[in-house]
Amino acid sequence: MTAGSPLDRPALVTLGEAMGVVSGVEPGPLAVGGSARLSFAGAEATVAIGVSRLGHAAAWIGRVGDDAIGSMVLSGLRGEGVDLSGARVDPEASTGLMLRERRTADRARVTYYRSGLAGSRLSPADVDADLIAAARILHVTGITPALSDTALAAVREAVRVAKAAGTTVSLDVNYRALLWSRTAASAVLTPMVAQADIVFAGPEEASLIVAEKEPGRMARALSALGPATAVLKLGDQGALVHHAEEVLVQQAIPATSVDPIGAGDAFVAGYLAGTLDGSDAARCLRLAATCGAFAVSAAGDWEGLPRRGDLPLLDAADVSR
Amino acid sequence: MTAGSPLDRPALVTLGEAMGVVSGVEPGPLAVGGSARLSFAGAEATVAIGVSRLGHAAAWIGRVGDDAIGSMVLSGLRGEGVDLSGARVDPEASTGLMLRERRTADRARVTYYRSGLAGSRLSPADVDADLIAAARILHVTGITPALSDTALAAVREAVRVAKAAGTTVSLDVNYRALLWSRTAASAVLTPMVAQADIVFAGPEEASLIVAEKEPGRMARALSALGPATAVLKLGDQGALVHHAEEVLVQQAIPATSVDPIGAGDAFVAGYLAGTLDGSDAARCLRLAATCGAFAVSAAGDWEGLPRRGDLPLLDAADVSR
Amino acid sequence: MTAGSPLDRPALVTLGEAMGVVSGVEPGPLAVGGSARLSFAGAEATVAIGVSRLGHAAAWIGRVGDDAIGSMVLSGLRGEGVDLSGARVDPEASTGLMLRERRTADRARVTYYRSGLAGSRLSPADVDADLIAAARILHVTGITPALSDTALAAVREAVRVAKAAGTTVSLDVNYRALLWSRTAASAVLTPMVAQADIVFAGPEEASLIVAEKEPGRMARALSALGPATAVLKLGDQGALVHHAEEVLVQQAIPATSVDPIGAGDAFVAGYLAGTLDGSDAARCLRLAATCGAFAVSAAGDWEGLPRRGDLPLLDAADVSR
Amino acid sequence: MTAGSPLDRPALVTLGEAMGVVSGVEPGPLAVGGSARLSFAGAEATVAIGVSRLGHAAAWIGRVGDDAIGSMVLSGLRGEGVDLSGARVDPEASTGLMLRERRTADRARVTYYRSGLAGSRLSPADVDADLIAAARILHVTGITPALSDTALAAVREAVRVAKAAGTTVSLDVNYRALLWSRTAASAVLTPMVAQADIVFAGPEEASLIVAEKEPGRMARALSALGPATAVLKLGDQGALVHHAEEVLVQQAIPATSVDPIGAGDAFVAGYLAGTLDGSDAARCLRLAATCGAFAVSAAGDWEGLPRRGDLPLLDAADVSR
Amino acid sequence: MTAGSPLDRPALVTLGEAMGVVSGVEPGPLAVGGSARLSFAGAEATVAIGVSRLGHAAAWIGRVGDDAIGSMVLSGLRGEGVDLSGARVDPEASTGLMLRERRTADRARVTYYRSGLAGSRLSPADVDADLIAAARILHVTGITPALSDTALAAVREAVRVAKAAGTTVSLDVNYRALLWSRTAASAVLTPMVAQADIVFAGPEEASLIVAEKEPGRMARALSALGPATAVLKLGDQGALVHHAEEVLVQQAIPATSVDPIGAGDAFVAGYLAGTLDGSDAARCLRLAATCGAFAVSAAGDWEGLPRRGDLPLLDAADVSR
Amino acid sequence: MTAGSPLDRPALVTLGEAMGVVSGVEPGPLAVGGSARLSFAGAEATVAIGVSRLGHAAAWIGRVGDDAIGSMVLSGLRGEGVDLSGARVDPEASTGLMLRERRTADRARVTYYRSGLAGSRLSPADVDADLIAAARILHVTGITPALSDTALAAVREAVRVAKAAGTTVSLDVNYRALLWSRTAASAVLTPMVAQADIVFAGPEEASLIVAEKEPGRMARALSALGPATAVLKLGDQGALVHHAEEVLVQQAIPATSVDPIGAGDAFVAGYLAGTLDGSDAARCLRLAATCGAFAVSAAGDWEGLPRRGDLPLLDAADVSR
Repeated sequence: MTAGSPLDRPALVTLGEAMGVVSGVEPGPLAVGGSARLSFAGAEATVAIGVSRLGHAAAWIGRVGDDAIGSMVLSGLRGEGVDLSGARVDPEASTGLMLRERRTADRARVTYYRSGLAGSRLSPADVDADLIAAARILHVTGITPALSDTALAAVREAVRVAKAAGTTVSLDVNYRALLWSRTAASAVLTPMVAQADIVFAGPEEASLIVAEKEPGRMARALSALGPATAVLKLGDQGALVHHAEEVLVQQAIPATSVDPIGAGDAFVAGYLAGTLDGSDAARCLRLAATCGAFAVSAAGDWEGLPRRGDLPLLDAADVSR
Repeated sequence: MTAGSPLDRPALVTLGEAMGVVSGVEPGPLAVGGSARLSFAGAEATVAIGVSRLGHAAAWIGRVGDDAIGSMVLSGLRGEGVDLSGARVDPEASTGLMLRERRTADRARVTYYRSGLAGSRLSPADVDADLIAAARILHVTGITPALSDTALAAVREAVRVAKAAGTTVSLDVNYRALLWSRTAASAVLTPMVAQADIVFAGPEEASLIVAEKEPGRMARALSALGPATAVLKLGDQGALVHHAEEVLVQQAIPATSVDPIGAGDAFVAGYLAGTLDGSDAARCLRLAATCGAFAVSAAGDWEGLPRRGDLPLLDAADVSR
Repeated sequence: MTAGSPLDRPALVTLGEAMGVVSGVEPGPLAVGGSARLSFAGAEATVAIGVSRLGHAAAWIGRVGDDAIGSMVLSGLRGEGVDLSGARVDPEASTGLMLRERRTADRARVTYYRSGLAGSRLSPADVDADLIAAARILHVTGITPALSDTALAAVREAVRVAKAAGTTVSLDVNYRALLWSRTAASAVLTPMVAQADIVFAGPEEASLIVAEKEPGRMARALSALGPATAVLKLGDQGALVHHAEEVLVQQAIPATSVDPIGAGDAFVAGYLAGTLDGSDAARCLRLAATCGAFAVSAAGDWEGLPRRGDLPLLDAADVSR
Repeated sequence: MTAGSPLDRPALVTLGEAMGVVSGVEPGPLAVGGSARLSFAGAEATVAIGVSRLGHAAAWIGRVGDDAIGSMVLSGLRGEGVDLSGARVDPEASTGLMLRERRTADRARVTYYRSGLAGSRLSPADVDADLIAAARILHVTGITPALSDTALAAVREAVRVAKAAGTTVSLDVNYRALLWSRTAASAVLTPMVAQADIVFAGPEEASLIVAEKEPGRMARALSALGPATAVLKLGDQGALVHHAEEVLVQQAIPATSVDPIGAGDAFVAGYLAGTLDGSDAARCLRLAATCGAFAVSAAGDWEGLPRRGDLPLLDAADVSR
Repeated sequence: MTAGSPLDRPALVTLGEAMGVVSGVEPGPLAVGGSARLSFAGAEATVAIGVSRLGHAAAWIGRVGDDAIGSMVLSGLRGEGVDLSGARVDPEASTGLMLRERRTADRARVTYYRSGLAGSRLSPADVDADLIAAARILHVTGITPALSDTALAAVREAVRVAKAAGTTVSLDVNYRALLWSRTAASAVLTPMVAQADIVFAGPEEASLIVAEKEPGRMARALSALGPATAVLKLGDQGALVHHAEEVLVQQAIPATSVDPIGAGDAFVAGYLAGTLDGSDAARCLRLAATCGAFAVSAAGDWEGLPRRGDLPLLDAADVSR
Repeated sequence: MTAGSPLDRPALVTLGEAMGVVSGVEPGPLAVGGSARLSFAGAEATVAIGVSRLGHAAAWIGRVGDDAIGSMVLSGLRGEGVDLSGARVDPEASTGLMLRERRTADRARVTYYRSGLAGSRLSPADVDADLIAAARILHVTGITPALSDTALAAVREAVRVAKAAGTTVSLDVNYRALLWSRTAASAVLTPMVAQADIVFAGPEEASLIVAEKEPGRMARALSALGPATAVLKLGDQGALVHHAEEVLVQQAIPATSVDPIGAGDAFVAGYLAGTLDGSDAARCLRLAATCGAFAVSAAGDWEGLPRRGDLPLLDAADVSR
């Protein structure tokens, strides 16, 4: 068994923002002398890590600053085997930062330091067309288009390249109310959904794009816009997928929750890794749900994500690979 | 003995920026999963806390955001007895943040998130003229003028009010290379030194204002610009003061260093508290040096500052009050 | 928005004991090398903090010693904006201390070091009549009368002043079996209930005063003794109030429990803050229950208490103010 | 009340392996810079500690190396009052070590460093016949026989001595799949069960020995092989005992779980302490279940075990002694 | 090599108070949410542990309360192999507690909770005459006589028994200004010195008993009162002994200081262990100094004390045993 | 500035053992409930990380087990940018482990769990000849040859490949007394020194190979055996190099020591990075000394190693690149 770096071209490419995270350790108001835990976060980075841990080469495109947080982000991604040949250190701006006050055991309040900083300076020039063309999946989210005009242009360019090269386009709607209005998001994301091959959304997010209210119908309606596969993430209720005129349902996999953040991105990572495995939709969903369960089992957005050999710990029936 | 809140008008008023601090606990590069300590910092806030702990009512004027860090700053200052009647919560901007990587046990690298944020939005409208006029000392630093045009205007307004009211003006040159050039700082701070009654500077800072190179001569030259008292902070070498045509020297008070940051502001707090005590320059210097020693004896910029009863722990000869 | 210290006269005044708390961090027997968390506690102090965080000026009257724990108590209360003009540092006695062994995740064993120490030396001379007369509510508990003869006299004096001035008297029965017998408590507290305008009690506590067994009837019976409002705290079952010939019921607000201690005092703080808001009994009860939920969401007796802006995190329907 | 060391001969003697434990503190993959908690473990050592905490003198026979972990094991056992007159420091081999990755909040992955190390070098020469003969119970497990040929011989010698002296023999089947196959375990343990007076097993373990599938029948079948008492440990389902032609059932005692490891050994400790108390089977079972509840209430295999005075905290009906 | 409990009669017996210790972890003022470390302390207990770690059986006589701290003290002493057959759990009083604020890295402020508590209730009835008569050394300190009249009587009774039995009496003057005046101490301790065979004192303490000022002369003068051996502890300057008309000097053994507390008691433990080894005064002094160096190398009063095999780590020339 | 993975062939290749490290956090004996820090170590891995951080692609060849520690080692190395194409996961053996008891602040006692485990199963078949042939430097140490016959053969094969390809051979003598005798080491390492182009040794190590006693002469004598460059590491005294008939001396760079372990390997990394920079011997020595200073400035063997931009923090005169 070799432990070497993946020499294969990345099977999945993603692009977006990654920023430092400072999370209060003890629930309650932040206080002088209190302890915080350091890490980094970014929906696309989490997906890249999750796919890489499950054994498929993944690449992340984005920018960090030339500072301590930027180094931490790059070392962390590199340690997880994520291909960084498309990542850049931007000497002109600091890496963004997110401060999380764990106000109660499961409710956080967040302050962002990201506006104008390195992650939002992503631009079409950063989009490595060869990397995307050679990949099997391009994964983008609805967060990056909201960061800046150049970031939006970069996402559009990446999708354009993928479509041209026949690379599958995956889109997680991921609406963030702090970044833009529902109206603005709807205007930008609806055409993007239409271009995607796989789309992920929660019910609130899906309602940005389609008029239906019931999850199964929402999935069907999303699919009707273009994507062959539409996945509704329902949190504690599990998930469902509309694919090939069929709706499949998956219950959530039970796990003792340590940190609820990151479960949605972990779910996407599992689904896409299943797709790269060549699994059918039912098995993709189950792998997605298992990844979600692992994500909540550890502090941090991505730290708990499973390696292939971990899966049986939470999914006794796991037969992946 | 009453424990009550100071009902007296503040004897010292200061204004400036206070921001959150996230410091890596373990020396070395920041890493995922690492621990950080939360606190806040600000040169003027440290002076206000130091003076308050030594028993003189002190007020701080400044802005924080309506967020977790802002609450932490205000609770911290209030807990130290600092009068916040001139402090404001700015609903339009976040509180600034400083991230400290303790790269070695005594060398840190800092990333600032402060530009355009609440602290730098200080403006002349925030200057509480009654508070300053009723105080015995107004303390300002060379940091605030570098934050923004409105902040510079606020400092000038505060000094104007103090001069008009006969309140003693104290200025710590506190040059910060990350904020402005030596040329720009010199242009703004030289006239400010001329207006001050007490000026504090390190040798590098003094050389922004005067041409001399030797500490004693520097102090004399600073004094020649206007201030009755000019104090040179010499770090491990102690300090000296030029006052009433005399130069007095004070050795550093030895202490096991836990965190070197904040010693200079602690020194100023001690000197000004001594002034409010009515002490002569020699006793002011000794109290200043003792405060510096306490500051390095604990983590954080201000947490280690002494209360009156603590002084004998590091200064066996303390006879203050 | 001003961040300043409350200049208004306190709307609520309370008096009692506050002592240091040393709590084992890890569940299990205390062991050499183990970690403990430092804080302070006191039923009345918790109520003052809770009311202050919800935006009403509150004052605490009591004594601490001239020592490290006493300083920590005063800084903590001051940081929360509690008015300490009626607090005293007693140079003759140490501040009390409570040592909590978290024997299991939710069962603690406590050793008290409080007998004869500063908190129990509270006396009628400490009662600041002006402060009470100017307040809208005086809050007392059944703990303070059990501490010493002088403490009992102080509570009686405070109630006397409040009745004379038309200040509403709130009493939490708060029976503590380690301090006195049920018989002794009943004899002292029954007449105190009769003088109160608002009374709080758990079922076990109410049975010290009245003969009824069913919560609704207990509340009615308590009310019959004098108080216009009688509130039964029923823990996981929520709470009910008898007021104006009506009984209202409130379910507990669900929250992941981190530390169950302090919920009862938080509940009282919420109810009294609601009263100061001018809310009706139903809204007071709901705010009380929300405060209880926040209290169990963080370590410590009072650290988790909500500020006004936190309420929607646990109470989606919050419309307070 | 004397606090002295037990001068009485041990009422219970046990022999086996004790090894160091390094457990990741945070759930998730082990990572550089992560924190681990140090302790020691060993099924028989846990039983000895549990019995000792409940007031009966207990002895442990086994070997550790002349190293830091060995010192920690011996100090730990000695601190719990366990008689170590039969323990040896083996200068030729290190103490074994177990590394626990808490992959999720309740699923761990373990790496053992034990093969050929001190614990497995236990031999018949280590068996202190006088100690066993003077005791009321000898407790052995199915782990020690799997460690090495000499360890198996030691267990057989201990049982031989006990049978000859009329000392009650207790056996916990404790099958460990990492150490040997079910076939090998069955061959060795079945005759050992036949020699025991009390046997403990989980359903999976019992099926190594008997053909029945239903817990009550399993217990009966185990008893039919020889033991007067057969106890089935059913985890969350509680436990049952077959004794004197009767089957008694005990529900699990509810407790918030901090660390599920060690509950089975704690259960055995409780049952055997009840036996030494002279309690009937129902009370032994209840004490066993209470000890299991305490074990899961603290980190570590044995740290949470109750002293006599702790029992009412989790078992309101406790009337032991 | 056996790991067993010492079956031999203790070679050294000591009696005194042991109390819990709560020490702030971070230097600086105690603050809400701060961390503390739990342990226990007592000059005589430290000597017993030090002697036990160096391989000589040692017994401690004293009282603790029936509480969490008392259990921690007894488990800790028992874990170190200290014989507790003369220790008692006093059901009427709590175990004492010492709260240490580490105001700077090496200056602490202490609050004691000990007056009237279990440790000070030691009485002549607790003195186990057989234990003392069978020992080679009885060690007492000048702390215990200051705790209460019964504690003083207990020390006197212990010394009386030792003298009668021919057991060597060792006395550490250990003057504590918080407990009694120099005059009171001098009156009680001077006759006690006269009865001792070995006396330990710092220069300040020696001046309570004798009029000399220079260390060598002080030792000689102490010896002239009765003790065959008089040892002056000189801190950083090392130590000297007057014995058999000779004065020997020992330099301090260098070590990086982690926690300066407990060095003096460690020194005594080393000297007395050397005496029990049969070493000459020079080797006793060297072992004493090495123990002092180990004590400052770890947090806590006694945790860092060396086992025999540790000695070469700090004393390259160690040839003990 | 690109952040991408090094696509260049590694400039330096090294091979050896990497194992997990569990280090007690607090100085003193390991104790139940104590905290440990997790990391990994290996002299060659440290060199690879150091060279990589300074900007030259480096590869590590070695084996880990298929377990939690193995994953941590690989993620850690990968995160530092080390090429792992020559690393293997051995499914047959666990990753080795080192347990460090920090007995005092600067003296540790170590227990190894490595014999027969994955790292020592390195064999000639693991040696990637292409990787070595394409590199500029092969770095080996005197540790690997002592691990097993196959490991020795692997080192010899690597050196053979390097010599054949014209790759510079660097050897750090690194004698480890726990692994083999001086006689055995001398027999194996002397011919290896003769084959090396650069050799590193401490004085004790050099005396295994040459008869001289004075550092300068030792270096000259080592060089006389073959290496063009011989470097003597003198710890606090700095270092010297014999190269081109010249001896150059370098003082140690001062730094506050947090953890002295790893300084020697950091020194080697610095020297070899300087060599890859094309620097002369004096600049190589200075970079080596700076790296040594950074290594002691952080916990762990390699965590503190500098990136290029960190150098000026400890070396004001740094002009590298």
